[in-house]
Amino acid sequence: MDLEQILSLLQAGSLSVQEAKDQIQGFQDLEFASLDLAREKRNGYPEVVYGEGKSLEQIQAIIETLLPQGNPILTTRVNEEKGKALAVCFPQGIYHPLARCFTVLAQAPETRSFIAVVTAGTSDVPVAEEAAVTAETFGHRVERFYDVGVAGIHRLFAKLEQIRKASVIIAIAGMEGALVSVLAGLVDVPVIAVPTSVGYGSNLQGLTTLMSMLTSCSSGVTVVNIDNGFGAAYSATMINHLAEESHHPHDKEED
Amino acid sequence: MDLEQILSLLQAGSLSVQEAKDQIQGFQDLEFASLDLAREKRNGYPEVVYGEGKSLEQIQAIIETLLPQGNPILTTRVNEEKGKALAVCFPQGIYHPLARCFTVLAQAPETRSFIAVVTAGTSDVPVAEEAAVTAETFGHRVERFYDVGVAGIHRLFAKLEQIRKASVIIAIAGMEGALVSVLAGLVDVPVIAVPTSVGYGSNLQGLTTLMSMLTSCSSGVTVVNIDNGFGAAYSATMINHLAEESHHPHDKEED
Amino acid sequence: MDLEQILSLLQAGSLSVQEAKDQIQGFQDLEFASLDLAREKRNGYPEVVYGEGKSLEQIQAIIETLLPQGNPILTTRVNEEKGKALAVCFPQGIYHPLARCFTVLAQAPETRSFIAVVTAGTSDVPVAEEAAVTAETFGHRVERFYDVGVAGIHRLFAKLEQIRKASVIIAIAGMEGALVSVLAGLVDVPVIAVPTSVGYGSNLQGLTTLMSMLTSCSSGVTVVNIDNGFGAAYSATMINHLAEESHHPHDKEED
Amino acid sequence: MDLEQILSLLQAGSLSVQEAKDQIQGFQDLEFASLDLAREKRNGYPEVVYGEGKSLEQIQAIIETLLPQGNPILTTRVNEEKGKALAVCFPQGIYHPLARCFTVLAQAPETRSFIAVVTAGTSDVPVAEEAAVTAETFGHRVERFYDVGVAGIHRLFAKLEQIRKASVIIAIAGMEGALVSVLAGLVDVPVIAVPTSVGYGSNLQGLTTLMSMLTSCSSGVTVVNIDNGFGAAYSATMINHLAEESHHPHDKEED
Amino acid sequence: MDLEQILSLLQAGSLSVQEAKDQIQGFQDLEFASLDLAREKRNGYPEVVYGEGKSLEQIQAIIETLLPQGNPILTTRVNEEKGKALAVCFPQGIYHPLARCFTVLAQAPETRSFIAVVTAGTSDVPVAEEAAVTAETFGHRVERFYDVGVAGIHRLFAKLEQIRKASVIIAIAGMEGALVSVLAGLVDVPVIAVPTSVGYGSNLQGLTTLMSMLTSCSSGVTVVNIDNGFGAAYSATMINHLAEESHHPHDKEED
Amino acid sequence: MDLEQILSLLQAGSLSVQEAKDQIQGFQDLEFASLDLAREKRNGYPEVVYGEGKSLEQIQAIIETLLPQGNPILTTRVNEEKGKALAVCFPQGIYHPLARCFTVLAQAPETRSFIAVVTAGTSDVPVAEEAAVTAETFGHRVERFYDVGVAGIHRLFAKLEQIRKASVIIAIAGMEGALVSVLAGLVDVPVIAVPTSVGYGSNLQGLTTLMSMLTSCSSGVTVVNIDNGFGAAYSATMINHLAEESHHPHDKEED
Amino acid sequence: MDLEQILSLLQAGSLSVQEAKDQIQGFQDLEFASLDLAREKRNGYPEVVYGEGKSLEQIQAIIETLLPQGNPILTTRVNEEKGKALAVCFPQGIYHPLARCFTVLAQAPETRSFIAVVTAGTSDVPVAEEAAVTAETFGHRVERFYDVGVAGIHRLFAKLEQIRKASVIIAIAGMEGALVSVLAGLVDVPVIAVPTSVGYGSNLQGLTTLMSMLTSCSSGVTVVNIDNGFGAAYSATMINHLAEESHHPHDKEED
Amino acid sequence: MDLEQILSLLQAGSLSVQEAKDQIQGFQDLEFASLDLAREKRNGYPEVVYGEGKSLEQIQAIIETLLPQGNPILTTRVNEEKGKALAVCFPQGIYHPLARCFTVLAQAPETRSFIAVVTAGTSDVPVAEEAAVTAETFGHRVERFYDVGVAGIHRLFAKLEQIRKASVIIAIAGMEGALVSVLAGLVDVPVIAVPTSVGYGSNLQGLTTLMSMLTSCSSGVTVVNIDNGFGAAYSATMINHLAEESHHPHDKEED
Repeated sequence: MDLEQILSLLQAGSLSVQEAKDQIQGFQDLEFASLDLAREKRNGYPEVVYGEGKSLEQIQAIIETLLPQGNPILTTRVNEEKGKALAVCFPQGIYHPLARCFTVLAQAPETRSFIAVVTAGTSDVPVAEEAAVTAETFGHRVERFYDVGVAGIHRLFAKLEQIRKASVIIAIAGMEGALVSVLAGLVDVPVIAVPTSVGYGSNLQGLTTLMSMLTSCSSGVTVVNIDNGFGAAYSATMINHLAEESHHPHDKEED
Repeated sequence: MDLEQILSLLQAGSLSVQEAKDQIQGFQDLEFASLDLAREKRNGYPEVVYGEGKSLEQIQAIIETLLPQGNPILTTRVNEEKGKALAVCFPQGIYHPLARCFTVLAQAPETRSFIAVVTAGTSDVPVAEEAAVTAETFGHRVERFYDVGVAGIHRLFAKLEQIRKASVIIAIAGMEGALVSVLAGLVDVPVIAVPTSVGYGSNLQGLTTLMSMLTSCSSGVTVVNIDNGFGAAYSATMINHLAEESHHPHDKEED
Repeated sequence: MDLEQILSLLQAGSLSVQEAKDQIQGFQDLEFASLDLAREKRNGYPEVVYGEGKSLEQIQAIIETLLPQGNPILTTRVNEEKGKALAVCFPQGIYHPLARCFTVLAQAPETRSFIAVVTAGTSDVPVAEEAAVTAETFGHRVERFYDVGVAGIHRLFAKLEQIRKASVIIAIAGMEGALVSVLAGLVDVPVIAVPTSVGYGSNLQGLTTLMSMLTSCSSGVTVVNIDNGFGAAYSATMINHLAEESHHPHDKEED
Repeated sequence: MDLEQILSLLQAGSLSVQEAKDQIQGFQDLEFASLDLAREKRNGYPEVVYGEGKSLEQIQAIIETLLPQGNPILTTRVNEEKGKALAVCFPQGIYHPLARCFTVLAQAPETRSFIAVVTAGTSDVPVAEEAAVTAETFGHRVERFYDVGVAGIHRLFAKLEQIRKASVIIAIAGMEGALVSVLAGLVDVPVIAVPTSVGYGSNLQGLTTLMSMLTSCSSGVTVVNIDNGFGAAYSATMINHLAEESHHPHDKEED
Repeated sequence: MDLEQILSLLQAGSLSVQEAKDQIQGFQDLEFASLDLAREKRNGYPEVVYGEGKSLEQIQAIIETLLPQGNPILTTRVNEEKGKALAVCFPQGIYHPLARCFTVLAQAPETRSFIAVVTAGTSDVPVAEEAAVTAETFGHRVERFYDVGVAGIHRLFAKLEQIRKASVIIAIAGMEGALVSVLAGLVDVPVIAVPTSVGYGSNLQGLTTLMSMLTSCSSGVTVVNIDNGFGAAYSATMINHLAEESHHPHDKEED
Repeated sequence: MDLEQILSLLQAGSLSVQEAKDQIQGFQDLEFASLDLAREKRNGYPEVVYGEGKSLEQIQAIIETLLPQGNPILTTRVNEEKGKALAVCFPQGIYHPLARCFTVLAQAPETRSFIAVVTAGTSDVPVAEEAAVTAETFGHRVERFYDVGVAGIHRLFAKLEQIRKASVIIAIAGMEGALVSVLAGLVDVPVIAVPTSVGYGSNLQGLTTLMSMLTSCSSGVTVVNIDNGFGAAYSATMINHLAEESHHPHDKEED
Repeated sequence: MDLEQILSLLQAGSLSVQEAKDQIQGFQDLEFASLDLAREKRNGYPEVVYGEGKSLEQIQAIIETLLPQGNPILTTRVNEEKGKALAVCFPQGIYHPLARCFTVLAQAPETRSFIAVVTAGTSDVPVAEEAAVTAETFGHRVERFYDVGVAGIHRLFAKLEQIRKASVIIAIAGMEGALVSVLAGLVDVPVIAVPTSVGYGSNLQGLTTLMSMLTSCSSGVTVVNIDNGFGAAYSATMINHLAEESHHPHDKEED
Repeated sequence: MDLEQILSLLQAGSLSVQEAKDQIQGFQDLEFASLDLAREKRNGYPEVVYGEGKSLEQIQAIIETLLPQGNPILTTRVNEEKGKALAVCFPQGIYHPLARCFTVLAQAPETRSFIAVVTAGTSDVPVAEEAAVTAETFGHRVERFYDVGVAGIHRLFAKLEQIRKASVIIAIAGMEGALVSVLAGLVDVPVIAVPTSVGYGSNLQGLTTLMSMLTSCSSGVTVVNIDNGFGAAYSATMINHLAEESHHPHDKEED
């Protein structure tokens, strides 16, 4: 809403003074949080709820505050117990157990260009699903390529042609994270690397993987925090959005 | 060159058997290096030379091998002494002292969409210039916004409108790197963060900055290695390339 | 009590020899602890009880020993179970569940100058409450500004005018802790930064936040240990005490 | 200068349009830096120049830009060679070799309340002098207590009565930094601890000292970065400023 | 037993061939362990059992194997459940719950010279008790001085005269461990420092304390592993043994 | 199977098209994993299942997929509960509780040359058993030498003659890992060192042991990850395989 | 020499008593070193001289002491200046500048089976040469495969057939070390990984590479210290020795 | 000097008022240092000068202040240039180049009991000499056993009988430090371990050695800081002092 809209609604009695003030200031104070109502305007995507460490009641209150904005709602790091409870509170929402996300008003993924989500192993899948659900919730098409790590590199080559068609790749790996370097050496689109905390001992809870990806011998790699599937998807959707815009004209030409 | 071209040139005597073999295999063995001739085809950009730890003779030999490919040549991490010597060997090349890069056949930056290179402080400028020269060498337009860190945040706000027009932002900072979180909270395009080794003590040679950027409270941030201006620019050009493709049709509409 | 008082009370039979000895020596030996009875005299504030790792019985015994001194009693890091039990033992006391503190004889906050307690996010609130309860227990006025982190920086600016009126600011943040640098760049009073262990992966249980705050690009920042709301408040009350002293004369002038 | 002043001066021809714009925006763009002209207004102290990594020419240009503001100018981390050169350029300035600072227009230290600068050893003195010169440049009285570390604790006790009279204490130590805990246990004013990189092996270039001070068993301690004498003094002057304000009325009473 | 004794006992039928072989080789193979039977001869003290990670059955089997040697038996790191079970198996033994040790055939502490066990806080007591029980089990007199840390340094001075009479001091502290430096600066006997994992955040589970003690500004300090009360006592008894030998003649002189 | 075999079986109807495709591509896609069917051909040993973090159902599905290949199946890091369940599903398999491995179709250990598995202590035995079971499953003879660490070095010397007969030694130790250096100084075959996470405090969960082994003063040592008995055995079997090949001719000579 | 030989030579006057004593004890005391004369007998290879931190005079004295043993002499970590000086002292020796080794009496490499030395990049070559020279000095055939890292993975595949023929592979890489995982997934012989200190920032002087290799997703990898080409070669020659023994009989069969 | 002596000397004019004050307070203020004059009385040994980071003039001034006390003077960490200059200033003093110490009035080593200084390698000798010179300066007999590390463990066993006669052992090693564990397992006197910064890569400048020694599997080991030969000797002399006292009576018995 722009300022004129807000003031008109206030005048018309559709907004209270407090609601108008919140809209103009761009945030709403709950007892425990200060919700950013202006984020979609500034950042392209609405406020996302980080579920870790928040009580069910807090998450519920936040969703209820955000819902009237009419934007897709994404809550990440929601464990199964809370996820099921939220699904009862908001029957229109969906809990994604593998991704540990709860979504409401998720857009239908409809872009032509797509984001490839690639994992080295089976244990990286939950992080991959967090990434995939995030992107899909905001309307982006995702293709999944799981368990194609370099210990058996022929598995990656079998999928490579398909992966290369993506506009951006999210590469997810634990242990030494070699998948990222190999993959980035074979493609011409940005690779966003997500280290996972898979491994033990010298893996240092994913820190080795993180550092390793940052010092990759291949170019075209940027990195996000350990297990941060959401963050990777957030940047990837911004990139895919550009690709999508550039696709449409071509589409016309193809017609 | 595709296979048929190579074989025709061999038949015509324009290529030796060794040269044809190199082209088909996609690399050429020097005594000390195995140059990747197929990289532009795979990755969209040709082989880049990392100058650190290479002798003048080695850099010279590599440039001489790559030049006939006809691609822009970028050599990074070249100190002043080597840079001046290279400028003598290759008079058509340019040494960029601040960026510590030597370029030959650099493309004229001609994209309409642009990459914003933003720094927190004065000491971050060399890394910023490495990023800027990298992007410009491959034909991308760059806008520079230097010394706008959060200690005096009004400086950032004064430039914000302009920065927001970029298709991708490279944000470069040392110390605690707070610029990245503030900036990413204010824009709707991907931010690639480059930590620099500016600071002392608890800065840990940039490691604190790196870790800090990875755990940023803002979304839309991905990170590259400490002082890695080149790497940030490499990914940024891939993203700006997508933006550029989407721009052209609009341009036509504007005409 | 000064020496003469102690000796008079001993002579009068109001103190036993052991009690007089304790008072003169300035500590009292319990079986498991040696309580500092001279601390208020030396440090301005009486002995505070760190509850972590102490049994209910130990905490109870310490409070019983300190109570006759007539000073406010603050016990920090008290979990809910122990807190409720203490509230039964000492009905005049109060358990603060969010702050995890138990207080007895807390002073009424009555200073005119105040301490601003500012947090970046919702998860930082428990640490903020530990700080706030500590300061209030010793008679200082506290103003709370919660969830105004830099991801949505307009929330901070909306509260800035009020925050600037404080005599000292406690700034509490997890993740990259950027709030501290931004805030310190905008005020002219000391900022005491408290890193919290909020975040994951590269956050390193708050170590990144700690290091980041220590290498802040803004001046006027000092730092305490991770999650150490109590320590921040302790120093802040010493500073606010100076401000308070300087306020009163002005007050008179205002009259 | 407030807005009206600036516009009047512009009208009167005393300011160019660019100068007026800089004053209104609050910063001035040099080729390599964006100088914060509004800092004294916001922070109470004017822009300070961090000399490390800046060329003589850059420092000179910055000083020339700041001088007309009429504020005291402090340049820190200036080595002897640059220091002597600056003293030639600005004959009204002073180079402090031990503190490695260059100052111009430094105020005469005139406060009645004072800042105690205490060091554990001889090797901590350069950091102490950086702190002392910083505070004195902005007009604060400083008392120095050097080499009173706990290996010979009677040296500290001999000076304690004097130290306790300070309004704030800067405690500077390397190695295990025990001076800080001992001192904070004996005083009732804030202690700002500065770890120094004095020691070897397990000292880890001051990191052990830093961590040790942060986990001090005494209350009332806040910490700044390793060797950051300037930062400690900056916060200390803010605190001493409060003490000074509260002193003056007492002074009158004493008269 | 020396070789001749062993062979005589074998000949006399008091030892089996296997037992004689074990004695000659100096160890006995259990299924899961190879017990060192020659340790007292080599090291002055018999094999000690580290209870952590061993099952009740394993500890029991080891004690049964060692008992016939006739030496005091010390089992460390035994939790309460196992400790009570062992007390049932070996009624002549004693479980020390605070020290988490189980002892059998412990010698009566009878040395004239003594080991001082000093702690900074209440939370360090379990480690102190492990040290004290270890030393006492092998016949050494121990004096305990608990909770005399430097936050209230007068408590240490009140006990100092007594502590100085020890032949060796075990100083136990968590957090920054400043007690060690202060104490070592005041005595003329060796100080063995034991860092404990008491503290949080920058304490790094005792690593800061460890590093801090190793970089102490006082001389005469050596350090053992975090929480290693046993190890400190082991070395201390070796030192006190020397003191004890030197005492006896003096005793005679005193007579 | 080679390509011709696969195609013949397809033609004969013994393989479905999907099965033939999997065999030719060298992997089979399960829903959650992409099983490497070509590994034995490439690496000499078939796919091994890492059980940690996989559900019983997942492990079961993988074993069922691999079984028809006719190779020995090794599943590592299987806890007791899953192990017993697997033993019910696959009655021909064996669960090794100490080694935490489940094996099916394990080969009978039949090599003449052998792998020595040596541990410093009792607590290292589970890692040792993982190594031993791994090697035995693939048909290699193993000799175990447990609890011969350097605190009682005579125990090692008593076994040395036997250990020296091995073709390769796996040396497993926690704490400071000194066994590795001592042992490698006494033998003329490769030593593969496995650090274990046995120890506390400065042991840093085995990291100290790992680093220590890597900086060993003895030559002939290579190292694997902390607690990685499987990895050590995998390399050891490759080495023992070479020794075995070289043994046979000698055998003939001996006949 | 065995004992009888030594005593005979003593009797015959060919050895002095001191020389005989040294031979029997197995070491010779120089003023600054205690040379191990029994190492070849115990370890299969004679004493190797680590040149770092030793003076030219010390190295010279050691070589002169070892020469009469008649074994190949290898001195590692010898800088160019010392290397040239040694070549003057011992004209029969050779200085290898790239490998920084000085060798005397080096054996001719004559094994049929060979060691593959593979590097990811050009900067890894000095470490590779240290490995190659070490192996060759002790008589082993080496094949070099340099600069075949995964950024251009087709270079590795072009050499793979040849590499697979080795009996053991030394894989040398800096940065993220991904070459090791990819290579180990493609071969059936042991891979000894050598991390190099090539990289910057998050590479942490090779520590990231080291940790990364230790947590490799591929099996069959063991690791040595950073830049330790010598150590890798030492273990590799032990392995190749086994392969060689097994080759000879085959050779005969082939004849 | 005790108080009466000081006052008498003052009265007699042999001391100035300032000198008397210094003696009574127990320290003397130089411009840059506060010299501890009471240390021998408190600690048994007089003030020692740590030369690192002190100028020649400062060291000279300190020695001149301490000389009149009549105690042995030890200055550690003195480089060759300063050492030679000091030998000119104080002709009665001696510079020890290997130990990097300068001593004046050193006592003749005359104890019957002795301190064994044992090193693993040649590179550890400078640290060993610092320890030896320290102990000898204060009158203790030292026996040196150099280069007896565990890579050739027979060298240690050849010296063991002699080493076992020491009253305390200083064990000095770099790399993995295994010498300490082996040695401590073979003796019945305290072992003080000194890690040295000898090694590279995973050695982490001696940190691995330090941590390794602290987590030693042998008992009776305490540890000092990396390269801290002085500190080890300081504690060792305290222990040897006890041994010496106990020797004398025996001596008489022997007579």
